[in-house]
Amino acid sequence: MSYLDQLNWRYATKRYNGQPVPAEALENILEAIRLAPSSLGLQPFEVLLIEDRAIREKLAPAAFNQPQILESGALLVFAAWKSVTAAQVDAYINNMAATREVPVSSLHEFKSMIETAVSAKTPEQLFQWNARQAYIALGFATAAAALEKIDSTPMEGFNPAAVDEILGLAQKGTSAVLLLALGFRDEEKDKLARARKVRRLDVRHMSKSVLTPV
Amino acid sequence: MSYLDQLNWRYATKRYNGQPVPAEALENILEAIRLAPSSLGLQPFEVLLIEDRAIREKLAPAAFNQPQILESGALLVFAAWKSVTAAQVDAYINNMAATREVPVSSLHEFKSMIETAVSAKTPEQLFQWNARQAYIALGFATAAAALEKIDSTPMEGFNPAAVDEILGLAQKGTSAVLLLALGFRDEEKDKLARARKVRRLDVRHMSKSVLTPV
Repeated sequence: MSYLDQLNWRYATKRYNGQPVPAEALENILEAIRLAPSSLGLQPFEVLLIEDRAIREKLAPAAFNQPQILESGALLVFAAWKSVTAAQVDAYINNMAATREVPVSSLHEFKSMIETAVSAKTPEQLFQWNARQAYIALGFATAAAALEKIDSTPMEGFNPAAVDEILGLAQKGTSAVLLLALGFRDEEKDKLARARKVRRLDVRHMSKSVLTPV
Repeated sequence: MSYLDQLNWRYATKRYNGQPVPAEALENILEAIRLAPSSLGLQPFEVLLIEDRAIREKLAPAAFNQPQILESGALLVFAAWKSVTAAQVDAYINNMAATREVPVSSLHEFKSMIETAVSAKTPEQLFQWNARQAYIALGFATAAAALEKIDSTPMEGFNPAAVDEILGLAQKGTSAVLLLALGFRDEEKDKLARARKVRRLDVRHMSKSVLTPV
């Protein structure tokens, strides 16, 4: 099966059969998230893995009791940094210096570039910027899940304030922006399991002739 | 090579050798974009494929003359819908009805759900929502490129207003949110081609014990 076949196989699963996600597949999906690109490499979000039933029962009403919260095998919560703090930038630069075995001072120019990018944004713009990076990682996670033959459901339909409170995110300076349910589809209960995928193709091949005059 | 090895191989390429992206790889990357999930399935963005040199020369100054604009093999522009119009919702519902061979009237409830979600958002929130969906597709595109052994560079560093004007996006009701350069790395010129990837692992396995009291 080609990777495009796998991506075609995936769909936003509505009903799961409750089986847990095998540990190796789960670790691989988390590794894909870790490898996802992000602006300036900051990875300005955290990911929470929730398998515990008691926590999911608390989360369900905060997600309008969508069945995936309780029926899936695992639930990931993507929580974006509310801001980008000097400490977070320092930790990143120190990590880069340690990983690449170069002195921190050699990264001065790169660090200044980050600081300039951060200081140019309002708090709301910073949060939106961070949230967008989590969406790239969601893309990696969903693609990796398909390659692992694990079903998934990206979910925006939840009350962020309630999820933040249940998971204690405010104290960590993050806020939930996405949930990703993972597991195995229940083909009998999920009427979308066999529905045709609906997509439009919307790529414009730009050549000089279609350019508007500037 | 496992898909995780491929994702590990990719990095935000700074210098390309100018070779074009083979047509089949490019088509596969575009197909991955088409297959990416989006909120409610709306795919609220368009993707422009730019190989033409003259257009890229116009775009370069709008992207601070970063070398990838001219040196890469192809350039994708992800442009998010500025809004979600009734006509766009109708087109989506009609596409769904045609694809699944069901009457439009059977999708009334789903259509109402979309209209409720759209009307609850301010214009700025709609654009942010749409932009986030483009970031998921960017994740799919970047992962697919890695699987095709095509280098890529997600780029936020450009002047959206200038890019919109050059590409005539305002008239289409979209605005550029991301560029993705595609091609082949120039290992000699790109000092990052052999640099170790810098990542932190930030997954918290949530169990009852780490939950804050609620």
